[in-house]
Amino acid sequence: MRRIKLEISYDGTNYSGWQKQPDVPTVQGTLELTLREITKEDNIAVTGSGRTDAGVHALKQVAAFTTQTALPPDVFLRALNGLLPLDIRILNAAEVALDFHPISDATGKRYRYLIDDNRPCNPFTRNYTWIVRKPLDENVIRDTAQPLLGQHDFKCFQTTGSPRKTTVRTVTDVLIQRIPSTVLTGGAVAGSPLSIEIQANGFLYNMMRAIAGTLVDLYIRGKEQVLSLTEIIESGDRSLAGQTAPPHGLYLLDVFY
Amino acid sequence: MRRIKLEISYDGTNYSGWQKQPDVPTVQGTLELTLREITKEDNIAVTGSGRTDAGVHALKQVAAFTTQTALPPDVFLRALNGLLPLDIRILNAAEVALDFHPISDATGKRYRYLIDDNRPCNPFTRNYTWIVRKPLDENVIRDTAQPLLGQHDFKCFQTTGSPRKTTVRTVTDVLIQRIPSTVLTGGAVAGSPLSIEIQANGFLYNMMRAIAGTLVDLYIRGKEQVLSLTEIIESGDRSLAGQTAPPHGLYLLDVFY
Repeated sequence: MRRIKLEISYDGTNYSGWQKQPDVPTVQGTLELTLREITKEDNIAVTGSGRTDAGVHALKQVAAFTTQTALPPDVFLRALNGLLPLDIRILNAAEVALDFHPISDATGKRYRYLIDDNRPCNPFTRNYTWIVRKPLDENVIRDTAQPLLGQHDFKCFQTTGSPRKTTVRTVTDVLIQRIPSTVLTGGAVAGSPLSIEIQANGFLYNMMRAIAGTLVDLYIRGKEQVLSLTEIIESGDRSLAGQTAPPHGLYLLDVFY
Repeated sequence: MRRIKLEISYDGTNYSGWQKQPDVPTVQGTLELTLREITKEDNIAVTGSGRTDAGVHALKQVAAFTTQTALPPDVFLRALNGLLPLDIRILNAAEVALDFHPISDATGKRYRYLIDDNRPCNPFTRNYTWIVRKPLDENVIRDTAQPLLGQHDFKCFQTTGSPRKTTVRTVTDVLIQRIPSTVLTGGAVAGSPLSIEIQANGFLYNMMRAIAGTLVDLYIRGKEQVLSLTEIIESGDRSLAGQTAPPHGLYLLDVFY
């Protein structure tokens, strides 16, 4: 028995999310089918570091599976990339301890949320950014977002119906910037999208999308806004925070162990 | 009667090219339908600066139409961007002389061809770059491409069955470089794709894709290559040049008047 850890990047556009479901394409389901083809093991199961929803992307998702085969990790890497569809790519494969668990061993994660507020908007990023009609000022949003840093009860950013032992999380980094150029436009069409990157020891369900939506809502409301981000967090009330931003602007950037 | 010039950017992935055809989505067809909706003129016709094939993209295509309406250009701009699908965006709309013709008035064009030779490749660029298995050296390819500059008979890069009065064209710029970063990966996943940009007073059918394919073929053949690019051009023989690179790596960058 050997355990193989995979680092995976995927374009979530054509998938109903990470988690395997009957009759719809999922990233986990596609990986398992491909690994069964490679190993001839019918019971092979892939465990990811967490689910991503339909349309959400990953620059680096981490997963692991256990196999009886003697195939070296780099053979898995090449065989997977040869057989998988081009919108799922394996970045790395390595043998790990048999008890490695992608969820419970994770010490933190980092997400990016991309917002395109340029007009006319870029025709290439409709599945990859949230298109927002009002131009955003990244310096104002950066200031607004500072109260996210540190240990807080983030219940106000949790979609209900996803009970957790605790809704306290520690945010260790908030990075808000314009990403300066794009392969597809070379800067020729539109300006640069706004990127919100957040690193934490864990994320509640839809927390990153609720934070992105709230930051945009607070910016758009401007001075009409009654509550600050600190007050919204302290309230613990989902209805006082902003909208849940759409899934296609969200990227899992990294998982830490 | 007024004539409106449009600058258009589109993601060609979901279109059967620019030119209107029955029963399939095309960029020209989509624009005409939308303009009929706006103007209520049943006979409105959009003329482009040239066709792009299925899967080919445009950062800036130029087109024009004639209308009886008094709508100002910026109303057309906003109405079109409100009604068009998100993968076709209008960058600019302006009133021009009634005799403006997007094809015959054009004095030149600029195209980009993008090649992703990074491993593991980026899952986000499968519809936007030609994925080539062998790593390419941009400095070698830049040297190889120099004979393209200047006035030549480019018959060797023309797909047959597209007769032209003359196959002589003048290439005024050849720019070969890595495009350094991407919105989608922020440099996190893979390296930078290779960009081949060529500006000329005109392009033969499939000329840009044949040049990109030939430059890659010459690089891969290396020292086994018998003919130089100069000799291939001088031969005027399509069979001595390289493959026609796939459409989804090609971008119309600009049209000059």
